[in-house]
Amino acid sequence: MDVIVSEVGPRDGLQSIDRTMPTAIKIEWITALAAAGLPEIEVGSFVSPRLLPQMADCAELVQAANAIPGLGVLALVPNLKGAERAFEAGALRITMPISASETHSRKNINRTTDEAIADVARVCALRDSLDGPYREIDAGVSTAFGCTMEGAVDEDRVIEIAVALAKAGADNIGLSDTTGYGNPAQVRRLFKRLIAEVGDKAGGAHFHNTRGQGLANVVAALEVGVTTFDSSQAGLGGCPYAPGATGNIVTEDLVFLLESMGLDTGVDIDKLLDARQIILKGLPGEPLYGNVPDAGLPKGFHYARAA
Amino acid sequence: MDVIVSEVGPRDGLQSIDRTMPTAIKIEWITALAAAGLPEIEVGSFVSPRLLPQMADCAELVQAANAIPGLGVLALVPNLKGAERAFEAGALRITMPISASETHSRKNINRTTDEAIADVARVCALRDSLDGPYREIDAGVSTAFGCTMEGAVDEDRVIEIAVALAKAGADNIGLSDTTGYGNPAQVRRLFKRLIAEVGDKAGGAHFHNTRGQGLANVVAALEVGVTTFDSSQAGLGGCPYAPGATGNIVTEDLVFLLESMGLDTGVDIDKLLDARQIILKGLPGEPLYGNVPDAGLPKGFHYARAA
Repeated sequence: MDVIVSEVGPRDGLQSIDRTMPTAIKIEWITALAAAGLPEIEVGSFVSPRLLPQMADCAELVQAANAIPGLGVLALVPNLKGAERAFEAGALRITMPISASETHSRKNINRTTDEAIADVARVCALRDSLDGPYREIDAGVSTAFGCTMEGAVDEDRVIEIAVALAKAGADNIGLSDTTGYGNPAQVRRLFKRLIAEVGDKAGGAHFHNTRGQGLANVVAALEVGVTTFDSSQAGLGGCPYAPGATGNIVTEDLVFLLESMGLDTGVDIDKLLDARQIILKGLPGEPLYGNVPDAGLPKGFHYARAA
Repeated sequence: MDVIVSEVGPRDGLQSIDRTMPTAIKIEWITALAAAGLPEIEVGSFVSPRLLPQMADCAELVQAANAIPGLGVLALVPNLKGAERAFEAGALRITMPISASETHSRKNINRTTDEAIADVARVCALRDSLDGPYREIDAGVSTAFGCTMEGAVDEDRVIEIAVALAKAGADNIGLSDTTGYGNPAQVRRLFKRLIAEVGDKAGGAHFHNTRGQGLANVVAALEVGVTTFDSSQAGLGGCPYAPGATGNIVTEDLVFLLESMGLDTGVDIDKLLDARQIILKGLPGEPLYGNVPDAGLPKGFHYARAA
């Protein structure tokens, strides 16, 4: 596998939708995504069920997904309490978002960025105090490419936060374009610096397609050595044609991009397309996005692994 | 100006729509696009009005657009007869598509690729026989990245055709992803070879967004030195969410990509957005596409020229 496509639909997609997909259908969907070859899936969030009732079944999803052989199972954790719940549920890999924008951080989690970094350190200490298998902690610097409230975000500050997260004990530090503000030149600059500063702790890229720049940013990130990309099947939960849209890049289009460039993802696009039906079973009438699902694969298309 | 955005909406967009925008509104639209700072506009096609009645007013459009100070005015020409009409109308720059796929060429214009190249030579000879200002002849290798009938198109053949077009007397030779089959790795390879083989006769890139890869391909082309890109305002004439869609990349999203990367296009995005209303006046209810028009510019956005 040359590039890891990390599916975040069951978390980032479903948390943006106002109704709840039944747990059994979530498990059917996650199982189908894994069977299509996706190596990693973020299955849910250990946020308070009062805030996001759609995510209340996260413990059950982690347990079901852990039973799928070979699958990397991730869950989002907003704070120490969420980490305790995650580890109790058997989560072996958690991801914690830390906002580079102070305004966004205060508004979103009512803490400063430095307080959020301190929380990552506490979660790492908790992890280190536990017996059993090693539990990986991913930290994602959100609003790393700009903030809808602050506008531009200082690039030095983004890198400073990434370094602080590495020191706090996080295993992988990624950068997230939460707001769809990023551009390929900025993506090259920031990931190049991230890799230079935190070395093999440099994590993946989480891009949104709000302004249509998602895959363009992927091309730029690939150039400087990024090998993990988050995406959401069917661009679930975001509407690319609505004001303020925050849709993730579409997994189907991302896999096609990578495979057609000769980069093996291990994913079978036809099986991925079939899995869209499960979303509609769980959320009837939900709009599904993506260009490849509508246009189909080119005549004569072959996978990188067949080359 | 760092990059030339060459607007093809009045030609590639409108020729794909089954009804005709009134000539006066076309002129109003072209005038507004020029006022928004677009340096080049392909205003129509000198194809037979029996085949494409939407393009019957091309001579009138060339004359009106030629009167706009500083604007590069292009018109598509399918054959020698079209070139005669174009030069009579006062066209100073014409563009001729030559298909790299034999099947596409025969089906589209009932000629082999070599016959189409010979036609370019005849048009160049006609041009050379005329008095008055120099008339520039652009040739675009269409289906250069793949063909819906043949599948993969041989890259050596694409370059061979480009070289033959340069020898035939064309001034600029571009490559077109007519079918939306292209990927960034292929874009880098082909444009690198094109530039190596035809030098300063290497022309622009014409990408479609059929599979969502349009702007990703732009990033790859920029890297190897391409500085002219075709696009269509509002992605006119193509539906990115329909099977077989052939939409051009969206001018609004392309300009945002380039400007946010620090590349000056000379275009004012707000004025460009205003021009969308003229399309709707001429074609009521026509679907308009683009992510930037829906999401808006990021907070704190500034143009490359303001940096």
